Amino acid sequence: MSSSDIFIGETIGTAILILLGGGVCAAVTLKASKARNAGWLAIAFGWGFAVMTAVYISGPLSGAHLNPAVTVALAIKDGDWGNVPTYFAGQLLGAMIGAALVWVAYYGQFYAHLTDKEIVGGPGAQATAAKAVEAEEQAAGPVLGIFSTGPEIRNAVQNLATEIIGTVVLILAVLTQGLNDKGNGLGILGGLITALVVVSIGLSLGGPTGYAINPARDLGPRIVHALLPLPNKGGSDWSYAWIPVVGPLIGGAIAAGIYNVAFA
Amino acid sequence: MSSSDIFIGETIGTAILILLGGGVCAAVTLKASKARNAGWLAIAFGWGFAVMTAVYISGPLSGAHLNPAVTVALAIKDGDWGNVPTYFAGQLLGAMIGAALVWVAYYGQFYAHLTDKEIVGGPGAQATAAKAVEAEEQAAGPVLGIFSTGPEIRNAVQNLATEIIGTVVLILAVLTQGLNDKGNGLGILGGLITALVVVSIGLSLGGPTGYAINPARDLGPRIVHALLPLPNKGGSDWSYAWIPVVGPLIGGAIAAGIYNVAFA
Amino acid sequence: MSSSDIFIGETIGTAILILLGGGVCAAVTLKASKARNAGWLAIAFGWGFAVMTAVYISGPLSGAHLNPAVTVALAIKDGDWGNVPTYFAGQLLGAMIGAALVWVAYYGQFYAHLTDKEIVGGPGAQATAAKAVEAEEQAAGPVLGIFSTGPEIRNAVQNLATEIIGTVVLILAVLTQGLNDKGNGLGILGGLITALVVVSIGLSLGGPTGYAINPARDLGPRIVHALLPLPNKGGSDWSYAWIPVVGPLIGGAIAAGIYNVAFA
Amino acid sequence: MSSSDIFIGETIGTAILILLGGGVCAAVTLKASKARNAGWLAIAFGWGFAVMTAVYISGPLSGAHLNPAVTVALAIKDGDWGNVPTYFAGQLLGAMIGAALVWVAYYGQFYAHLTDKEIVGGPGAQATAAKAVEAEEQAAGPVLGIFSTGPEIRNAVQNLATEIIGTVVLILAVLTQGLNDKGNGLGILGGLITALVVVSIGLSLGGPTGYAINPARDLGPRIVHALLPLPNKGGSDWSYAWIPVVGPLIGGAIAAGIYNVAFA
Repeated sequence: MSSSDIFIGETIGTAILILLGGGVCAAVTLKASKARNAGWLAIAFGWGFAVMTAVYISGPLSGAHLNPAVTVALAIKDGDWGNVPTYFAGQLLGAMIGAALVWVAYYGQFYAHLTDKEIVGGPGAQATAAKAVEAEEQAAGPVLGIFSTGPEIRNAVQNLATEIIGTVVLILAVLTQGLNDKGNGLGILGGLITALVVVSIGLSLGGPTGYAINPARDLGPRIVHALLPLPNKGGSDWSYAWIPVVGPLIGGAIAAGIYNVAFA
Repeated sequence: MSSSDIFIGETIGTAILILLGGGVCAAVTLKASKARNAGWLAIAFGWGFAVMTAVYISGPLSGAHLNPAVTVALAIKDGDWGNVPTYFAGQLLGAMIGAALVWVAYYGQFYAHLTDKEIVGGPGAQATAAKAVEAEEQAAGPVLGIFSTGPEIRNAVQNLATEIIGTVVLILAVLTQGLNDKGNGLGILGGLITALVVVSIGLSLGGPTGYAINPARDLGPRIVHALLPLPNKGGSDWSYAWIPVVGPLIGGAIAAGIYNVAFA
Repeated sequence: MSSSDIFIGETIGTAILILLGGGVCAAVTLKASKARNAGWLAIAFGWGFAVMTAVYISGPLSGAHLNPAVTVALAIKDGDWGNVPTYFAGQLLGAMIGAALVWVAYYGQFYAHLTDKEIVGGPGAQATAAKAVEAEEQAAGPVLGIFSTGPEIRNAVQNLATEIIGTVVLILAVLTQGLNDKGNGLGILGGLITALVVVSIGLSLGGPTGYAINPARDLGPRIVHALLPLPNKGGSDWSYAWIPVVGPLIGGAIAAGIYNVAFA
Repeated sequence: MSSSDIFIGETIGTAILILLGGGVCAAVTLKASKARNAGWLAIAFGWGFAVMTAVYISGPLSGAHLNPAVTVALAIKDGDWGNVPTYFAGQLLGAMIGAALVWVAYYGQFYAHLTDKEIVGGPGAQATAAKAVEAEEQAAGPVLGIFSTGPEIRNAVQNLATEIIGTVVLILAVLTQGLNDKGNGLGILGGLITALVVVSIGLSLGGPTGYAINPARDLGPRIVHALLPLPNKGGSDWSYAWIPVVGPLIGGAIAAGIYNVAFA
């Protein structure tokens, strides 16, 4: 694969991943969305099929890493770090493009959600200054959640552990695909199986932190959240931002180590 | 493929697509349906598996485009517009037949839903003239939604953008299938993967406009809605009808352009 | 395939189909079930994966018809009616065994559901004779629904039409499997695709009548409902029983006719 | 396969199975989980995709039994009991590791769930001794349910029957995979089909007992529940523990018998 194919493939693929993944969060969260309150099962299937769609589209160009943790794990496994910067660059750029496209697709919904004080503050709410601030903060939370992950209980050790555990499962599933079917690998079925592994991680390990399990998936959209001119958007929670970057990278490295010891 | 196989295949396939796709909207919407209020996940899976069923049935005859945006994108990609009118004709006729079959399958449910004023207007509603008009309008909304799409927030620019974005994802996934598995394509898995891409678009990008992403899927049933003798059915919202036709066609052309530049 | 393999395969396969299909209805309906009120999506996926499980288990023995409408359609297509009685016998016997196994697996739940008058009649219900009869009838409804289908709106013409339409979709999907992948057929993917077609029919066409689309699936369990010593079980609704038998058989014949004209 | 590959594969695979399976129970049950109350469909898909993930990861090492009932059934079918103790040891150890990892990933959620008396006891609850005991018991129930199964209605005969029936379906599906596709087997599709069979059993037969259908899946986590220093965790319900061990083993033996008589 040429460097330009890798860069273009990762950019397109990660843009589609975040467009569809951030999209389902917007769909379930925002006012005036037909899918509002569709629940966690919709989130988990939505992210899983986002991965599947992105993998089949970008696979022929770049091999569809779409996740720096995958890139790091494959570099450790193969001992080849040559293309890693190209993969990283495409992944981060793609994630930012995808997050911006979510904003385009749900433009009116974002605006309605963030500016309609009457509904955000609840019916009969009095327009006192204190209440207005409270309403803004309430509104800001779910909108950041459309871009980036955040913990239900803020505890760096546990949050990091949860992200590491989820990523180890994902990367082990990716690395062992080539060993199935007596060494011929999962072939064209691989994209679907990876998608359902992501659904599984979402259903089972997403409860505490929202399962970033991918540094680009979290950091790119967080930058876009900080840049976008959304009214009442609140902060981008930069104090948490390192966990969904560091955790998945550690998880990828651990999974590569397990693979090299137990499977290779 | 002969012209008659194309026409028959697209007619049968699109009829099944709209029968099952419109069917799930009827199932979730109408009074006296066992699936009432089954939620957006049911809608998204229902439309996805509708695509899958229609693709596997009509694929051997016509290649299962079932969507003018697919036909246009393949014509741009291959530079061959010869069969385009035959595809279009079969797709529109099939979509109209499918919408009529939904009306047959849910005949009693449509009638109960549209004529039971007491329930539509809510318990204890007084039969004043104003309230009756209001009740009719309330009833008309969801019934048109069984046939055609409509926006939650009416904004031509955003609505068009959302339909374009969703269709680009769909068509890119269709066009790149042949590149997977080192050029052998997805083969028999293609129909299933396409179905799950449609589930993904529904979950992630369906919130603002209801994801037509297919001109025939929206226009054919809208014509049938205008023609059917449904009581209290309300208008067919023709002022919106151009968006789910033009948006997907633009999306298909953009996807074909991206394919020719980045993937071919 | 020998006659004994056909009979044994159809008996085992249809027993598993009805055990799992009736099982999901029991799971969602009965008191003291962990899956109570899991909703229509659970019903649709439950019946679909019931078909999948039964097809892969019984396929090697009998080809996994599991449905007299499939058997009739294949006999029309192939012009060979020799094994039809053996298929029918295995299907009906299997359906009865499956329904009895649902009763075993949910024995305590059936008893709790049917005998706990206090809850069935609602809190604070007075134990008058009239109320007790009403409570029994309320209770009987959902329990019959675990065995057999019934219409939301009782209209023989529409109910028959809905069953015919659903079965045409199912049988067309089954008959055309062999034409996919340029004539090599869907192969091992066939059982999964058929399952998802059944999910689709359930989501989209199940609302009015509960989608029998299989005479054995409805008649066998209805006989078992009539025979089982369930307290307060109510009637078996024999006046409706002909529709889910005749409708699917007509649907199978129509689908075979469409196949012979358009696809063969 | 070498003994060490079997042991390592079963340990890793069963650990992932229980991490993801117990994880979805934690996600749906515990306070401060984003997936709380996601419902039975989430449970059933969560356990199914847990099986799928574990099967594809551990398959190349150990063949991915992950369940003593599978190991016993294959030993009966093949007449070879040599590796059975190695399989059992890996399965039990893996199940314990997986349960411990659930506790790590949901550490804060467990603590919040078990110690926040105000919410567990309901708003306005008086802090009398009797009420506190009651609150502890209420809290203990769902936490044990994250580790092990339990019956809705405690009846040893029915509970055993339900576990036997569910396991027979699972093991028949596993044993007959090799007979499909005219003897070539399901190949790489096998892990996905097995996963969806488990979803099916969960949806259809999980209502009464929570479908252990696997002795290691129930016993290993129950031991971990007894050992973990969780506050207010309540008892580990050892009086029930034999049923999800004995039932699945009987089910596996029955399925092997059916296979040898009807399919071999």
